[in-house]
Amino acid sequence: MRQFIVLGHEAPTTPDFSLDDLAGSAGRLDALCRCVNSAFFLSHDFRSDVRLFLVLQDELTIRFEGDELRRLNPDERSTAALIRKALEAKSEAIGHMEAESTPGVYISKRDFEAVLDTASRDSTVIELHEDGSPVVDVEPPERPLFVLSDHGDFTEEEADLLAEKSDQRVRLGPKLVHGNHAMTVAHNYLDTKGYTDY
Amino acid sequence: MRQFIVLGHEAPTTPDFSLDDLAGSAGRLDALCRCVNSAFFLSHDFRSDVRLFLVLQDELTIRFEGDELRRLNPDERSTAALIRKALEAKSEAIGHMEAESTPGVYISKRDFEAVLDTASRDSTVIELHEDGSPVVDVEPPERPLFVLSDHGDFTEEEADLLAEKSDQRVRLGPKLVHGNHAMTVAHNYLDTKGYTDY
Repeated sequence: MRQFIVLGHEAPTTPDFSLDDLAGSAGRLDALCRCVNSAFFLSHDFRSDVRLFLVLQDELTIRFEGDELRRLNPDERSTAALIRKALEAKSEAIGHMEAESTPGVYISKRDFEAVLDTASRDSTVIELHEDGSPVVDVEPPERPLFVLSDHGDFTEEEADLLAEKSDQRVRLGPKLVHGNHAMTVAHNYLDTKGYTDY
Repeated sequence: MRQFIVLGHEAPTTPDFSLDDLAGSAGRLDALCRCVNSAFFLSHDFRSDVRLFLVLQDELTIRFEGDELRRLNPDERSTAALIRKALEAKSEAIGHMEAESTPGVYISKRDFEAVLDTASRDSTVIELHEDGSPVVDVEPPERPLFVLSDHGDFTEEEADLLAEKSDQRVRLGPKLVHGNHAMTVAHNYLDTKGYTDY
């Protein structure tokens, strides 16, 4: 099982946004939709061994469960529509209990700390950091958890939480890349067992 | 300079498509828009040393020139709007002569063969193929040209043309991935000088 947590700092927490303006008034939801795409899609196939958490403004969390997802398409607009449906089901999520809005998509009122606490159990938490070890020198863990931020940086509090929980600090390359691109590189690193198995 | 050619088999060749239905009636233009994203975007930065050709139904070619682009945003919808603007300028493109529709975006009436012929000059043409050599065993070329297909496979004619021109046949990993993900992995391979420089 591969897990990813992506923090959306400006992402909407209510469903009243337009699918026509994801990159604008919808708080850069387009960036999170691309992370969903990178998490799950293969050519004519699907990564069912992946779990993705999107944390919205440190208030709400949407969990995508690879082996249960049914209606996911690769494009940003239809992914945003699934997220909107999840936000419509928000009132059914009580405390940390989740509500399922569409198959394999769950919403809960959890913040980053709560999600990191749950997801990090039995996982190797990997912090992507420009001062980390080259990923090529790190043995791929069996149950990795990658934590990423959207187009904005981690807040100081998020960075502290992550540093406390992280087992490894790695860098994926010499250039800083978007979250969805980092996820694609991470998948390739894991698929190839650390660039050894093609 | 890194070059990519992406073949869009069902992509629109006229501007009368809706930005609200990129994954449907617009011939999976969403997939090509994600390739544009993968070609050019870095975190808070831009890859200016990249040239991307989108070949639409083997009739028209849109060229994106990294060091001239001004109005590119990462989301699919605004990228599709740039492509629509290019298609609106189609009548100004005479023969193989290009017309510039927005800064750094050019349209011409060129097919795959003509584009491959131009782009492959002074380049190392890399064919991504499941029977290719592991990319980790291949020295990164200085001026690579990667050729990819959209969500559909290469036609027999395209595959023959490519095999004829290709200098290297490589595989990026054990799983077949979407074109935009392959581009991201290719960039990472080049950025790290073949997984040696982080």
